[in-house]
Amino acid sequence: MRTRVGIIGAGPAGLFLSHLLHLAGIESVVLERRDRVYCEQRQRAGIVEHGVAEALTAAGVGERMEREGFRHDGIDLRFDGASHRIDLAALTGRSVRLYPQTEIVRDLIARRTDDSGQLFFEAEATAIDGIETDRPRIRFTHEGEEQVLECDYVVACDGFHGIGRASLPSDVIRTFEKVYPFGWLGILADVAPSCDELIYAHHPNGFALHSMRSESVSRLYLQVPNGTDAADWSDEQIWDELSTRFALRDGGWELRRGPITDKSVTPMRSFVTEPMRHGRLFLAGDAAHIVPPTGAKGLNLAMNDVMVLAEALVADQTRGDSGLLDAYSDTALRRVWRAMHFSYWMTTLLHAQPGDDAFDARLRLSHLRHITDSPAAATHLAQNYTGIPRI
Amino acid sequence: MRTRVGIIGAGPAGLFLSHLLHLAGIESVVLERRDRVYCEQRQRAGIVEHGVAEALTAAGVGERMEREGFRHDGIDLRFDGASHRIDLAALTGRSVRLYPQTEIVRDLIARRTDDSGQLFFEAEATAIDGIETDRPRIRFTHEGEEQVLECDYVVACDGFHGIGRASLPSDVIRTFEKVYPFGWLGILADVAPSCDELIYAHHPNGFALHSMRSESVSRLYLQVPNGTDAADWSDEQIWDELSTRFALRDGGWELRRGPITDKSVTPMRSFVTEPMRHGRLFLAGDAAHIVPPTGAKGLNLAMNDVMVLAEALVADQTRGDSGLLDAYSDTALRRVWRAMHFSYWMTTLLHAQPGDDAFDARLRLSHLRHITDSPAAATHLAQNYTGIPRI
Repeated sequence: MRTRVGIIGAGPAGLFLSHLLHLAGIESVVLERRDRVYCEQRQRAGIVEHGVAEALTAAGVGERMEREGFRHDGIDLRFDGASHRIDLAALTGRSVRLYPQTEIVRDLIARRTDDSGQLFFEAEATAIDGIETDRPRIRFTHEGEEQVLECDYVVACDGFHGIGRASLPSDVIRTFEKVYPFGWLGILADVAPSCDELIYAHHPNGFALHSMRSESVSRLYLQVPNGTDAADWSDEQIWDELSTRFALRDGGWELRRGPITDKSVTPMRSFVTEPMRHGRLFLAGDAAHIVPPTGAKGLNLAMNDVMVLAEALVADQTRGDSGLLDAYSDTALRRVWRAMHFSYWMTTLLHAQPGDDAFDARLRLSHLRHITDSPAAATHLAQNYTGIPRI
Repeated sequence: MRTRVGIIGAGPAGLFLSHLLHLAGIESVVLERRDRVYCEQRQRAGIVEHGVAEALTAAGVGERMEREGFRHDGIDLRFDGASHRIDLAALTGRSVRLYPQTEIVRDLIARRTDDSGQLFFEAEATAIDGIETDRPRIRFTHEGEEQVLECDYVVACDGFHGIGRASLPSDVIRTFEKVYPFGWLGILADVAPSCDELIYAHHPNGFALHSMRSESVSRLYLQVPNGTDAADWSDEQIWDELSTRFALRDGGWELRRGPITDKSVTPMRSFVTEPMRHGRLFLAGDAAHIVPPTGAKGLNLAMNDVMVLAEALVADQTRGDSGLLDAYSDTALRRVWRAMHFSYWMTTLLHAQPGDDAFDARLRLSHLRHITDSPAAATHLAQNYTGIPRI
């Protein structure tokens, strides 16, 4: 089999890249080791940056997002028993969209299928060969057979554990990592959200986040120590602790409770691979970098990677101009490190750190108050949260 | 001896308070354990916030500062071998003044003396009694005699090691502290400054600061590990290391060298006492709080304390309105904690931390770049550096 761009992974990044290339008349093949049902049900992030939402719409795949997603013009920063709205729209002229990643994946799969895109599920890439030649090849198994996909370029959008990063020669890559001493216990609950916008809460007990999947499904998170087993928390304990961390001093707010349908613990990690390209192999999304979820940057970074990469591949394939492609790693990494810093900053700002003393607690409170009192400090948060347009 | 406000310490805070009270017709006595020559030569900070400079001028003691001080409209943030100017004036409409603290002290002593202010040097306060009564007393020794100063109020501007904080009952105060794993090796050198504005440099070897005292005297600092003995650094080693940390990638800048006239190591600490008042004893300046010098906030916090306190004492003594006096501790502490956070932030931003790994280094670089790229992030720095007007 032969194509121009071989893409590993049918997550939002791989699918969007394939679609963007198709719009420019560039053929690609997407290989995905899971089946379609799995891909369309995988629960992931839900906040889409302003620029990513615009790009989806501009590419003709944002229609359902515009119709069924929710525009959020602000977030609620809750600390010291009080609620403080950060007005993203007023501070930056931009908003974010609440539209679950799994819905984006459904829309993109539907569109690639309608456009007769070459999208292979249950096709597991087993090796990437010849990335230093001009004819790289992806070996993969599909329907019990070993196959080979010959390409001009290979793009690995296959996540943190994928074959993409593992195929880079170890002497050309450098990795950067930070592991946090806590994780998130996340639940899905069949109950209408208790808020219209996300609540980011800091409480002496730790961080809590109130998000939502739809008008009838809430998504909530609690900071928990590393090593926590979700099964050790009863539903009632979870609701009680959420209520404690979201509580307002004046009592003027109540958390709605409902049946918990899913419960799991996510560890927190920051991770970067440099460079994001070697020879004819490109990395995008989680294959190259991981952020802690606090800043809602994981999905958005992946989408930004492929937006940069699509433009570069189009310039190369249609005009023979390889300048953007050569700059891809540096261009993408500027945004990656900005998001790394922002995610780290939001994470350390809002989470209780083991070993924090009274000084650290006062310092954090002063920092949080400054964000809500100072337009410059609030704008810093809002610009990063909604996504910096050019970087 | 009897007065309305007994002030311990003839540093800038105690002297300015005494002067402000005098302008409102309120009598005070200042007791200072050192002699006048010592007070007028003590080397301390040099950067005066916009609002503090305005207050000195408004109080008629800013004339020489206006004439001989230097207005700095920006700072140079130097990292990754490049220089980045933060335009304080353009970002905030405010500037800072370079005018050494020791000159402020001279101006204030001269003015208090001209106004026949009661200013006793070599008068060491040994005890503060009756702070929970309405007739507190300061016991002090002067010219070999034990004396007593009866007051309506006692204000301790006597520094970190003074008797003021030590006189607060231990069960009413709470202290907060952070000690940093590095200090500053500071030098005074008889050489014209190599720059017009301060340079704050981050280099993988650590932080360096280029400041100045006058057109012919430079003041420079190097981050050094705790426990460093200044005598272990030869003059040549100091200049070499300063040159390394300030170096520009393009080579277009050179550090002027000259005879080093003073060399010392300052440890770094953050410290806060709460509350800043108990009964009729008030704390101001270093008696209540210490910041690391990175944000140039120590002198400014002390001056802001006494500006708040003077207004409160005037309201109390002239109109019988004790509301501001009762609010003094809370009002002052809001600014104190803002400065604590800012100083901590500047310190951790610019210093190499023991244990930093490659991830931390990249994160810092992304943070520094964001400050120079994003007007919101630069404004956050500039507003805090020039001094937030109301807090």
